Amino acid sequence: MQRIPFSELQSALTAILLRLGFSAPRARQCAQLFAETTRDGVYSHGVQRFPRFVAMIRNGNVDVDAEPTLAAHFGAIERWQGNRGPGNLNAWACMDSAIALAREHGIGFVALANTNHWMRGGTYGWQAADAGMVGICWTNTLPNVPAWGSVAPSIGNNPMVIAVPRASGHVVLDMAMSQFSYGALESYSLRGQMLPVDGGFDTNGEPTRDPNAILASNRALPIGYWKGSGLSILLDMIAAMTSLGIATHKLGSDPLQEAGLSQVFLAIHPEAFGSSQRSAQIIDEIVDSLHRAPAAQVDSPVRYPGEKTLRLRAENLALGVPVDPALWQQILAL
Amino acid sequence: MQRIPFSELQSALTAILLRLGFSAPRARQCAQLFAETTRDGVYSHGVQRFPRFVAMIRNGNVDVDAEPTLAAHFGAIERWQGNRGPGNLNAWACMDSAIALAREHGIGFVALANTNHWMRGGTYGWQAADAGMVGICWTNTLPNVPAWGSVAPSIGNNPMVIAVPRASGHVVLDMAMSQFSYGALESYSLRGQMLPVDGGFDTNGEPTRDPNAILASNRALPIGYWKGSGLSILLDMIAAMTSLGIATHKLGSDPLQEAGLSQVFLAIHPEAFGSSQRSAQIIDEIVDSLHRAPAAQVDSPVRYPGEKTLRLRAENLALGVPVDPALWQQILAL
Repeated sequence: MQRIPFSELQSALTAILLRLGFSAPRARQCAQLFAETTRDGVYSHGVQRFPRFVAMIRNGNVDVDAEPTLAAHFGAIERWQGNRGPGNLNAWACMDSAIALAREHGIGFVALANTNHWMRGGTYGWQAADAGMVGICWTNTLPNVPAWGSVAPSIGNNPMVIAVPRASGHVVLDMAMSQFSYGALESYSLRGQMLPVDGGFDTNGEPTRDPNAILASNRALPIGYWKGSGLSILLDMIAAMTSLGIATHKLGSDPLQEAGLSQVFLAIHPEAFGSSQRSAQIIDEIVDSLHRAPAAQVDSPVRYPGEKTLRLRAENLALGVPVDPALWQQILAL
Repeated sequence: MQRIPFSELQSALTAILLRLGFSAPRARQCAQLFAETTRDGVYSHGVQRFPRFVAMIRNGNVDVDAEPTLAAHFGAIERWQGNRGPGNLNAWACMDSAIALAREHGIGFVALANTNHWMRGGTYGWQAADAGMVGICWTNTLPNVPAWGSVAPSIGNNPMVIAVPRASGHVVLDMAMSQFSYGALESYSLRGQMLPVDGGFDTNGEPTRDPNAILASNRALPIGYWKGSGLSILLDMIAAMTSLGIATHKLGSDPLQEAGLSQVFLAIHPEAFGSSQRSAQIIDEIVDSLHRAPAAQVDSPVRYPGEKTLRLRAENLALGVPVDPALWQQILAL
């Protein structure tokens, strides 16, 4: 891995986006969100995704100039049209609106139709938590996991993010509804390793830890089998019905054509109740209880979701953000 | 199984609650919620739970007269105190408040502290959907699952409910964060059967389908391993911090003393956007896509969450609600 100073990474991505027709402030913000994702250690969804993002600008699925527009509103809920703009800029704008609604009403709900891949979902959880809000958001995806009882991809892995603000480090859960992504299965396969737990079915319909058997059957597992399948279905339903957007089953199967997604952004403002000190104490006590739980492995205390982020962020800001040298050359040539 | 007419079941439970000191309208409603749960085929959380509910009235954890009281409110969010009243009556009242808030603001959020076991969580999903609302709610529980990385129960199985209204049958997901409840593990063990998928770790820390090995290690699995563990933690955090209630780690380990729970009730009113026809169409299209998905077993099409409910409800209303004869004798003697 090559370590690139954060500011250099951000400037390089900004320059590319400017060449692709972004306005200056939007190029800067979009580049920043990509660079921050890698800075925070979510390597799969930051710089590594940038070439695919550029490809989707070039194939016409991402409109660099399109900004989200308000389509309907009532009290504390809003419906926005994404107009196929850059997914991370659209998502950021919609969580911002949810936060503004929550300041006014205690809670805010924004449904977003016709948007694009939001890259790292956790970004919008951190955004809400930085504003002192509980943040909840999710997106649908193209069909990439079989529904429980089916042998073909029929539901999305529909990542969901839940964030709770905390002075010494927000708690941020960012999880897709598949047990392992296809990218992860391919990594295990390349390393010749078995998965640590069952990750799908083989072609005989038996649960298996063999990544090659799952890649052959195309039957990755939803988390919790029938449970994650149900959760994925409900998340897709709520996103599509409240945004009047496209549901998973209509999204096709080509990742480079995965455009027009439906998303939901929720912010809750617990401070509106005027009890922020006690709320903060409750969260810290839960974190302490997890750290005190009897660990399965010596010297590996239980972690809360997002616990590694601040340490990785500090390390990557101090030493430079790790980027694969070949990927970096590919990006500089975009 | 003995089949008991629904009205007879409801009257018998009402009579017992009246003897235990419930006011007449509260006895009727509480009995109805128990009877409806069994009527709907959720046998584990209806009449079967009634003896334990009575035991918790008798041991002082459930106060039959206590009604929830509003503790704080701001815009579309409210905080309620459950005052250790009957869990199902408290939960019903709080989802009702969330629905009222959603009618006014498009969305409503109610946090409830110091309540009791809500019995079937799905009840409050059906309640929201019957009112034309998307309903989302969850509860914390005592620690009954090890957090990921721990060997001892340290997080709750924190059931979560998500409901979407639909004219020809609501879609209602009601799922706990453990892959199998301890009750389910005991049933498999009694029948001498292995679980269909891994349900926990054995005492060597290996994933296993053997229910006895899991009952011996006390290490049941959260759904999706690390993912469900994270989800359980976040649900507990939000419930406790917004209600200022008790978090899982403070709830002890005795089910008969599992009192003072924290819960969250959310209602979203998509009709506030004035597009209910298109929303309904989107949901029906998703249901159709699931029914058309290639099935793993011939003649077993994919089902949406809650799909069996209306058929079971009709059958149990027509033929009588199935109740174990020994349980029924036990209840009549309460």
